[in-house]
Amino acid sequence: MTARDVEAFLDSEFPQMQHGGKSYGIESVRPLGAVVRMDFHDKHVRPGGTISGPAMMGLADYAMYVALLANIGPVALAVTTNLSINFLRKPAPVDMLADCTIIKLGKRLAVGEVALFSEGSDEMVSHAVLTYSIPSE
Amino acid sequence: MTARDVEAFLDSEFPQMQHGGKSYGIESVRPLGAVVRMDFHDKHVRPGGTISGPAMMGLADYAMYVALLANIGPVALAVTTNLSINFLRKPAPVDMLADCTIIKLGKRLAVGEVALFSEGSDEMVSHAVLTYSIPSE
Amino acid sequence: MTARDVEAFLDSEFPQMQHGGKSYGIESVRPLGAVVRMDFHDKHVRPGGTISGPAMMGLADYAMYVALLANIGPVALAVTTNLSINFLRKPAPVDMLADCTIIKLGKRLAVGEVALFSEGSDEMVSHAVLTYSIPSE
Amino acid sequence: MTARDVEAFLDSEFPQMQHGGKSYGIESVRPLGAVVRMDFHDKHVRPGGTISGPAMMGLADYAMYVALLANIGPVALAVTTNLSINFLRKPAPVDMLADCTIIKLGKRLAVGEVALFSEGSDEMVSHAVLTYSIPSE
Repeated sequence: MTARDVEAFLDSEFPQMQHGGKSYGIESVRPLGAVVRMDFHDKHVRPGGTISGPAMMGLADYAMYVALLANIGPVALAVTTNLSINFLRKPAPVDMLADCTIIKLGKRLAVGEVALFSEGSDEMVSHAVLTYSIPSE
Repeated sequence: MTARDVEAFLDSEFPQMQHGGKSYGIESVRPLGAVVRMDFHDKHVRPGGTISGPAMMGLADYAMYVALLANIGPVALAVTTNLSINFLRKPAPVDMLADCTIIKLGKRLAVGEVALFSEGSDEMVSHAVLTYSIPSE
Repeated sequence: MTARDVEAFLDSEFPQMQHGGKSYGIESVRPLGAVVRMDFHDKHVRPGGTISGPAMMGLADYAMYVALLANIGPVALAVTTNLSINFLRKPAPVDMLADCTIIKLGKRLAVGEVALFSEGSDEMVSHAVLTYSIPSE
Repeated sequence: MTARDVEAFLDSEFPQMQHGGKSYGIESVRPLGAVVRMDFHDKHVRPGGTISGPAMMGLADYAMYVALLANIGPVALAVTTNLSINFLRKPAPVDMLADCTIIKLGKRLAVGEVALFSEGSDEMVSHAVLTYSIPSE
């Protein structure tokens, strides 16, 4: 699937993800990878203008789901079984980008790692590793 | 701190946590532990009426922060450094409860585990382990 | 399977686990759980008499495998897919006990948590969460 | 510190790591990274000739410790606080290489990710993320 196909699929299947105003988008997809963006938006922000932890976890999950869909097609029922995230630095009050690389794409399990950055900086803000369970057909 | 003290502190320091309508509350605190609640609310829900992963991660984080504050007092600057969560079962479309037990309370690091349940069920929906970094005074 | 059945199965299928002298044993099994022991033995020890991290990870893995076998029977091919461990306190120079509770036992995945203790102390030394993939028949 | 300095430090401070025959070595160090090797050796092997999980966890830990020492100097007391590892593919019965990149090097905590490969293959066998606590001076 192309970035546009994945985005159309997600808008149709998971409209509530953009609840309170569209704030997630796909930058690019590639073999075993994807880059996505989260707009800087009130609903993701903590006092002092910092992005909340749950917003970053949601962004990491979105990056992995986009990478997975782009590589295996529209499997709505793939579900996250494990997410482990390290918060490394304070995010800046700007958009965030998440770059996911799938390191295993098996029949039943996929594992990916995701690096999160504040736009315009090359210092990693947080780093996540996720496992998705892929339903049998 | 009592449950009421912690809740007052959080309402004052982190009002945006209840953004879009108050949906988090403290059930009880105890030595090295706490139980918190997340109301079933549109903003946490995925299609089909299921609670979203990021909402559960946010709830686990809240449970740990409440347990920590109740045990060490108002340390606004304690921050999550690592969160690892396993999603075990589909949550029911009802309130969720999270029970946190702190398994290490050091000077610099605290580690807790959190079990999440749908209200009225004793089957664990998800399970998280978190590390908080505690600032030096 | 009883504790003795599991131990006989492991001795037969995985003799190299006890390489360099038998140092692992089963204390008890229960529905969705097991307690195992690792003898204090040169091969697990770091300078200063402390148990090494890899020895504790191996012990946590053994505890989960025993709990799984006791509950689903001799599935030699179940494999660990994820292990996350927090090292909480310095272990004492004595035997270690590991108590595993399976928190999900699905058809394809099992998740367990393991608490590790130095014998004679009730302070948790480390805490692990593991996922096993169970082969389809 | 150079690779040779780190190796000399480890041989002197942690001789028991090479217990049963020297099987770990440093390939190279770089700013915020290191590559290390584990010889294919009986003591790391499971039936069927596969490398054991604990051996891979030990190798990941060694890679991170080498990268850390090379970058901050001989801090014998830095300790692993968290290790999370995903086992992705069956290792081949050959030497393993582990490549560690430090993604955060703070005053109190360092976080690194480690990719493990069987020698001669570019398919990742396992992937770990580790946190080290660095003692204050």
